[in-house]
Order: sequence, then structure tokens, then C-alpha cells
Amino acid sequence: MILESGRDSALLDGLAEPDPEFLIATENEELRARATRRALVVLVSDHTLSTGSDADRLITELLAEDGFTVDAVVGVKAKKSAIRKAIETAVVGGVDLVLTVGGVGVGPRDKTPDATRAVLDQLLPGISQALRDSGLACGAIDAGTSRGIAGVSGSTVVVNLAASRAAVRDGMATLGPLVHFVIDQLQTASVE
Amino acid sequence: MILESGRDSALLDGLAEPDPEFLIATENEELRARATRRALVVLVSDHTLSTGSDADRLITELLAEDGFTVDAVVGVKAKKSAIRKAIETAVVGGVDLVLTVGGVGVGPRDKTPDATRAVLDQLLPGISQALRDSGLACGAIDAGTSRGIAGVSGSTVVVNLAASRAAVRDGMATLGPLVHFVIDQLQTASVE
Amino acid sequence: MILESGRDSALLDGLAEPDPEFLIATENEELRARATRRALVVLVSDHTLSTGSDADRLITELLAEDGFTVDAVVGVKAKKSAIRKAIETAVVGGVDLVLTVGGVGVGPRDKTPDATRAVLDQLLPGISQALRDSGLACGAIDAGTSRGIAGVSGSTVVVNLAASRAAVRDGMATLGPLVHFVIDQLQTASVE
Repeated sequence: MILESGRDSALLDGLAEPDPEFLIATENEELRARATRRALVVLVSDHTLSTGSDADRLITELLAEDGFTVDAVVGVKAKKSAIRKAIETAVVGGVDLVLTVGGVGVGPRDKTPDATRAVLDQLLPGISQALRDSGLACGAIDAGTSRGIAGVSGSTVVVNLAASRAAVRDGMATLGPLVHFVIDQLQTASVE
Repeated sequence: MILESGRDSALLDGLAEPDPEFLIATENEELRARATRRALVVLVSDHTLSTGSDADRLITELLAEDGFTVDAVVGVKAKKSAIRKAIETAVVGGVDLVLTVGGVGVGPRDKTPDATRAVLDQLLPGISQALRDSGLACGAIDAGTSRGIAGVSGSTVVVNLAASRAAVRDGMATLGPLVHFVIDQLQTASVE
Repeated sequence: MILESGRDSALLDGLAEPDPEFLIATENEELRARATRRALVVLVSDHTLSTGSDADRLITELLAEDGFTVDAVVGVKAKKSAIRKAIETAVVGGVDLVLTVGGVGVGPRDKTPDATRAVLDQLLPGISQALRDSGLACGAIDAGTSRGIAGVSGSTVVVNLAASRAAVRDGMATLGPLVHFVIDQLQTASVE
């Protein structure tokens, strides 16, 4: 609902104090642009999620708070081919963000990072680093030890989250401004 | 001696307050499981260690505090083949953790990360990130600039530490809960 | 001007209190060594820099404060071949540090990390991690999401910075002690 906008551009412009009217105008403009941003969630089935969790609802709510319309929450089996196909379909469908949840550990069914890697054009190590860092700080040890990656496929940002509620909550809080910044870059590039 | 257990699972289950009796039962169970965890230390010879340090004793003590029985502390030459062979032997021997110390800088004899990479099935970037981060925070600049990596080979976790005392001390403090969490995952996977 | 020296070696030697006279002697020695360190800056042209910024002067000042003599500030087009050539020329010329600024995002003209990768012998993930981490902490979101890398080519350290003033300011503050530590390692190695 409430978007954190106007902030990035002000910071990047340097040290001068920004004009408040400019800030409000920028904020409105960004609100409009961001209102149309679309996300798709891929839930990779594992122990945590299969035991009747409401991860579905939680993620949709958090994405809405971050200014994303959720196209769909898709459940897939913990197989590399299934995960890859779900991401590729979303990328072709033109969503701005694909968020996967689960499958980022070291077990035999943890295939999400490998499936994601096969789809990405560019890696965004800063996003996965920030997720591990803040996950560790908030006690989400599955986020801290996650093999999850993030990157760009076409003009879609793809991010792997770990499956615990703490990892999802903290991850969404960390992701918001970073993902919007990268989507801004991608949209600027496509306009040029 | 005192294991930090029961903590991870409680955090991951979400926000509900755990039952104290359940916690104690879990702690005892985990204490038993962790009491049998075995570690092997590979000291890669370099300047710091060759000048008669007691790194050997320090690491053994810290590993014991973290609930590991130390199978052996092996000294090897700073050669890629020697380091690789030492890690592989430990993995085949079924230890839960191989800790290497030294050889993670940029000099011609710093070959530990390269030797380790050749042995790993999966990388654990979150562990090497956490080691560099906390190393930098505590002033162990060799840990902060370390090329060291971490990962899984078979069902053994392998971690590279930098060679200074500060790097070893801080690294062991950072590693403990992360490595136990990953070993838990590996053991669950092998039981399934 | 004022070099932060004597600090690293004291920390790495462990916990004993260092002799003040030893510290002063070390500081003087390191001041002499560092006074001759040479840096070259590669400005990759992009929006931020092309609009008449004084990035040139800012970086030169900050490098001087960190004990580097700036050989040159070179402007190059945002093309992989041009960036690579500029770095290679500096490496052959024997500078201790090449600092690139810009071209680390996800747009079609962001080619700096790819060009840099082609030149490096070894990656230094700790430096890029520290830059993203402190960039994020100080609000330089382009530094936090940067695809920039760092590493060693021959005996030259190469580091990619993001282009905003905040990214440059914070990046230089973070880089200083890390880069000097790695250059120390490279110089020790070449003397042996």
C-alpha cells in the first residue's frame, strides 16, 4: 500500500537537500509506475510448506505491501525441470518479479538454485548476499545458509527465498527496495 | 561442552512460543546426536603457522566447545594436490566437518580455495560470506579478504579459514550454529 | 595523507599488547612503502558521469587520502572491449590498483564486471562483498545491488565501484585497508 519511493533517487543524487515538492511529484510518479508491477510466486514443495502452511497468503500480503500485484502463486514439485519451467513461463509472461520459496538447502531435493541458474542472464549477488545477511541477523538460519541466488532473466528479476516463515518475512522486508531499484534500471534500459 | 541446541528449530517453526519441556527434550536429543559429530582439521603450512604457533590446540579446544570430537589435526604442504588429498581422505573417512586453516590469500602458495573447490559437490556461499563479514567486523582483515570457500562434499561440510589467531577464533564462533544446521540437513536427507 | 598503518599487523599477531615503539617504527616503514603505491582510475561513461560530474576530482582526492598517487583518470566508453583494454594497459604499466567507476548495473551498457572478469587471475569476493554491504548500509543502493567484482590481475588489484557519489565515497572508505592488505600480500610474494 504505502510505497517507499523517492528515497533511492534522492540518495543517489548526492548530498544536496532535495526539494520537497520534487519529492512528492517523484513519489506520485513512482507510485503510478509501481502500481502496475507484477509478481509471480513459485512455491517449491518441501516439508515446511506441505504441512498446511499459509505461506501462500503471507507472501501475497507482503508483496502487496511492497507494491506488487500477484499474478499467481504456483506450487511445483521439488524437481529441477519443474522449477525451471515455472520460472521460464513467468518470464515469458512478462512479470517483473519471480519469487521462489524453498529448495535452497543441501538435501537431494534442494534444486531451486540450480534450476534458477539455468534461466538467468545475469546474476545479482548483492541481493542474495543481503538476504543471507539479514536472515542470519534475524535468526532465520535457513536464510543465512541458503544456496539461493538472484538475477535477471530477460527483463524479469528472479529471487530465491528459503522456506521458513522467518526467512520469508525477513526476505520480503530486505528485498523490496533492492528489487524495485533493479526493475527501475531494467525499465529505463528498455525505454532508451 | 555446552551445546547451543534447540535454538534453530524453535526459530524456524515460526512465532509461537515453544513448550519448555519440548525444548529440554529436543536439547537432550540433539546433544546426543551432536556428541558423535566428528571433525578433522587440515593445517596448511604457511608463515603464521610454521613459526611454532599453538593453532593446533586452539582449534581443537574451540571445536570441542562446539560439540565436535576432533579425529585429527593434519599438517599439509601448501600445494593444491596435498590439500585436496587431505580433504578427500577425511570425506571418505566420514567425518562431518573438515576445517582447513591457511592458504586463502593471493600469494603463489595460497591454493586452499582452489584445492577445496575441486572436492565440493555444492557451495555454501552463506558460510564464507558470514566468515568474511564477522572477520572484518572483528579486525581479522585476513578473514575479511579471504578467498576461502565452504561447501558440501558427499555428506561432509568443508570450510576454509584464514590463518591468523583472530580469524580462527572469530571463525569458530561464527561457524558453529551454521555448520550444525547444515549437518542436520545432510543427516535428515540421508535418513529419508 | 595520514595512513592507517601498523593496525593490520598488530591485529593479526594476536592478543598480546604491541610495543608502542615497534608500532611507530612499523608505521614509518609502511608509510614509506605506501607512499609509492600507484593507482589508475577508469571512468566508464554513463548517465551519472556524463552530466558534468566532478567524480574525477573526488576520486583523486580520496585515493590521495588513502596513500595512493593517481597516475591517471581515464574515461572510456561503456563497451566491454574498451574497458578491458584500459584495465590491461594499467596492469601492464605496473600500477598497484585499478579502480573502475560505473557500468555495474543490469542495463545493456553495464559491461564493467564482464570486462573485468576477463582480466583477473583471482577473484577477491571479500572486497566486493564489503562494498555491497557498506553501500547498502549507507543508502547507496546502486552499490548494494552492484554486479561489480574485485580481484587480482598480475600483481595489480582491480576493483569495480558503482557510479553514484554515495557509492564512490563509501566505497573508497571501505576499500582502503582491504586493498592495502592485499597489496602487502602481493609485494611480500614477489620478494620471496
